[in-house]
Amino acid sequence: MKVAILGAAGRMGHMLCDLVDRSEELELVAKCDVREEYPRTWPAETEAVIDFTFHEAVPANITKAAEDGVVYILGTTGLTDEEQAVVDAAAKKIPVVQSGNFSLGINLLLGLVRKASEILGVEYDCEVVEMHHRHKKDAPSGTALMLAKAAADGRGQDFDDVSVFGREGIVGERPQGEIAVHALRGGSVIGDHTVMFAGDVERVELVHKAQSREAFAAGALRAALWAADKAPGLYNMRDVLDI
Amino acid sequence: MKVAILGAAGRMGHMLCDLVDRSEELELVAKCDVREEYPRTWPAETEAVIDFTFHEAVPANITKAAEDGVVYILGTTGLTDEEQAVVDAAAKKIPVVQSGNFSLGINLLLGLVRKASEILGVEYDCEVVEMHHRHKKDAPSGTALMLAKAAADGRGQDFDDVSVFGREGIVGERPQGEIAVHALRGGSVIGDHTVMFAGDVERVELVHKAQSREAFAAGALRAALWAADKAPGLYNMRDVLDI
Amino acid sequence: MKVAILGAAGRMGHMLCDLVDRSEELELVAKCDVREEYPRTWPAETEAVIDFTFHEAVPANITKAAEDGVVYILGTTGLTDEEQAVVDAAAKKIPVVQSGNFSLGINLLLGLVRKASEILGVEYDCEVVEMHHRHKKDAPSGTALMLAKAAADGRGQDFDDVSVFGREGIVGERPQGEIAVHALRGGSVIGDHTVMFAGDVERVELVHKAQSREAFAAGALRAALWAADKAPGLYNMRDVLDI
Amino acid sequence: MKVAILGAAGRMGHMLCDLVDRSEELELVAKCDVREEYPRTWPAETEAVIDFTFHEAVPANITKAAEDGVVYILGTTGLTDEEQAVVDAAAKKIPVVQSGNFSLGINLLLGLVRKASEILGVEYDCEVVEMHHRHKKDAPSGTALMLAKAAADGRGQDFDDVSVFGREGIVGERPQGEIAVHALRGGSVIGDHTVMFAGDVERVELVHKAQSREAFAAGALRAALWAADKAPGLYNMRDVLDI
Repeated sequence: MKVAILGAAGRMGHMLCDLVDRSEELELVAKCDVREEYPRTWPAETEAVIDFTFHEAVPANITKAAEDGVVYILGTTGLTDEEQAVVDAAAKKIPVVQSGNFSLGINLLLGLVRKASEILGVEYDCEVVEMHHRHKKDAPSGTALMLAKAAADGRGQDFDDVSVFGREGIVGERPQGEIAVHALRGGSVIGDHTVMFAGDVERVELVHKAQSREAFAAGALRAALWAADKAPGLYNMRDVLDI
Repeated sequence: MKVAILGAAGRMGHMLCDLVDRSEELELVAKCDVREEYPRTWPAETEAVIDFTFHEAVPANITKAAEDGVVYILGTTGLTDEEQAVVDAAAKKIPVVQSGNFSLGINLLLGLVRKASEILGVEYDCEVVEMHHRHKKDAPSGTALMLAKAAADGRGQDFDDVSVFGREGIVGERPQGEIAVHALRGGSVIGDHTVMFAGDVERVELVHKAQSREAFAAGALRAALWAADKAPGLYNMRDVLDI
Repeated sequence: MKVAILGAAGRMGHMLCDLVDRSEELELVAKCDVREEYPRTWPAETEAVIDFTFHEAVPANITKAAEDGVVYILGTTGLTDEEQAVVDAAAKKIPVVQSGNFSLGINLLLGLVRKASEILGVEYDCEVVEMHHRHKKDAPSGTALMLAKAAADGRGQDFDDVSVFGREGIVGERPQGEIAVHALRGGSVIGDHTVMFAGDVERVELVHKAQSREAFAAGALRAALWAADKAPGLYNMRDVLDI
Repeated sequence: MKVAILGAAGRMGHMLCDLVDRSEELELVAKCDVREEYPRTWPAETEAVIDFTFHEAVPANITKAAEDGVVYILGTTGLTDEEQAVVDAAAKKIPVVQSGNFSLGINLLLGLVRKASEILGVEYDCEVVEMHHRHKKDAPSGTALMLAKAAADGRGQDFDDVSVFGREGIVGERPQGEIAVHALRGGSVIGDHTVMFAGDVERVELVHKAQSREAFAAGALRAALWAADKAPGLYNMRDVLDI
């Protein structure tokens, strides 16, 4: 499969290019970026486009992709409603996989957390713990929030009604249904996430440990291969993984 | 729901009686056992029978239960083929839930492990680690083997072809597809189980920690409540949990 | 060694009595309490007194113990300065071991955390995570605070200057030297504590998991045996453990 | 401090050069190697030499270093008795720090494990678990064996008398004093080590997680800075860390 990377000059772009180079099933036909020394767009032979650029760049890119009839993997986040509408329109002509996190493990975990939460119910107290390196500026991580929301969904809660982000003082007994998210920071940790369900007699814990930022890039490539023979439509990583 | 416990004098029987006493949905109508001071069988008002006895006792018990038309929860293990045939016959007349482990968490985990293994495939190396108290005489635990087999099933392997139980010396690179089971022993640990999937860029770990042997009893009671309105048939805990 | 338990009717008192009963080195000569059916004080043959009562009761008890010349193990907390002064005075005549937590493991961990923190310094980010059952009303646990203070001490910090108890929002990069304490609550967890030191290239984690409240009682008995041949003085569990 | 790296063309050499470049306290004055494009030896201004070469190369290098009066950090392993004798002789003239593992965290952990084992004694069952990437050919890791031996030493045992490397079948109750070492293999794990002490009422776990092979290089640089003002002698990392 002939692949073009948009945003090739960025950290994720570099990693995608490296991974495609090492892949036996994929061939890199274009490294595109807005920086001067890069081409802006992909050649005619391209079969799949992977977009990790900026939200303003997405509409023009995906519109051209829809004309070209290629597979489109969209990892760029922060789209406005107008930009998203362009994506939705393009997805009527080509297969588009859009996700905020292409890591196979995290997407699997999202499905497992939802299922576990549905089965265990509010009698099992849910706590989410994440750890990232000391340079991360926001807390908790977006992924921790996705996992906590999956737990809330699984038992029919609205996460905003039950979330807590730390405990100090005489806080009283833990209210049933609460979901606490704890953000640890330290060293060079790439990203650890644990979702705990603690019942009267047992604990179940679902854990993800990223060992390399490649985890995120590898999932985008898997999505491209998956989408090769799919009908036009807007897909997410859970479709890719069949969870 | 009116419940009778068979094997009430045993450790599991005691725990079941305690739990039923504390339950709001269940009422204990008979504590049966072969010991002298106990009644042998249950009264007419009984709606569900929970059997943690010996395998020889099962055929007579479940045959009577089928005549009475009650729900039957069968936790007794080690049945011969003949005894199992009697169970199968009874299950044509009443709902029977049969399992070697009624813990909600472990049964959930079995389903999650199978799903994770199916999605992640052999490119993720699977290792199972369990820890139990120093008095446990067999290794690995039956539950660890169940989990390892679920991982093997999930990716289409026969566990016996790929199992390893320790590593020492110049063992060479890890063969793809291998599943290793490590049995830790120490102190008073009731039962911890971890199933790891380690890939090139990330790890997924699914963990169960038993905090009380009640975990096993609580699941049997849940099964009784679930079976109350079910058609006759032979069910297992995954049916109860809808995994 | 002939032992008397003060506060024998309480939860800790019960456990102490049970443990002494099962010990080969200790003999229970009195179960004292303020409740009606219990004796108030210990017989002349007593060699060691273990006090888990109320702070108001301590001065009278320890003054009598000093007259009797017995070993005194003091686990009662919340003493006023005046009450503590009476303890200090008694410790001139008899060996007194006073501690807020007699668990062998926790006291060992306090020493290890201090040493690790001293060696690793502020370039290793310190995070403390504790988990307790859902009924615990204060957060973080007193033990978690003791561990965090040991980490602060080890690298010459005042804990109050560097403590944080949760993170949410755009908090910016982690300040060097910060110590965060995260309080998880759920299920029936007796008490898990983890102290993490996360550096640029590695993590060190020191972990304690209580599996029974006996952990706390067992340490008090160990202290009694240790103090048998000691000179009068006020000791703590770190003296007992020689850390 | 002006530093020369011997073996600069190797994987560890590269990492050392990178770390020295980024250091504010160290200056790289020579990258030496036997490969053609590298100088063989260091300039006169050199204050410390770090040797990660081959065992045959050590005698000539350290003899020259002793003449030059520089600090010598020796990470090369596999020395013969004759080669070691040359090292011992050189250490009479210059400070030499020799170690098989310069990681700060692992060396700290070795000390903590020994202390914990001494305090907890054989009543706490000791189990060691390590995990490394799938390409590692020997098991258990050398570091796991060092940790297990530290635990044995701490309680006065000979490790070879008490070691076990896996359990399978009807193994019976765990013998008191046994130390089991479990080698997990999978994915790209750089190196995780856990030493557990499991007692009747509690568990203590001491954990190290390497996040980069830099952990090993960083310790060698720390050793160089430490040795700057030391008298001639043969030191190890525990001297450097004052454990």
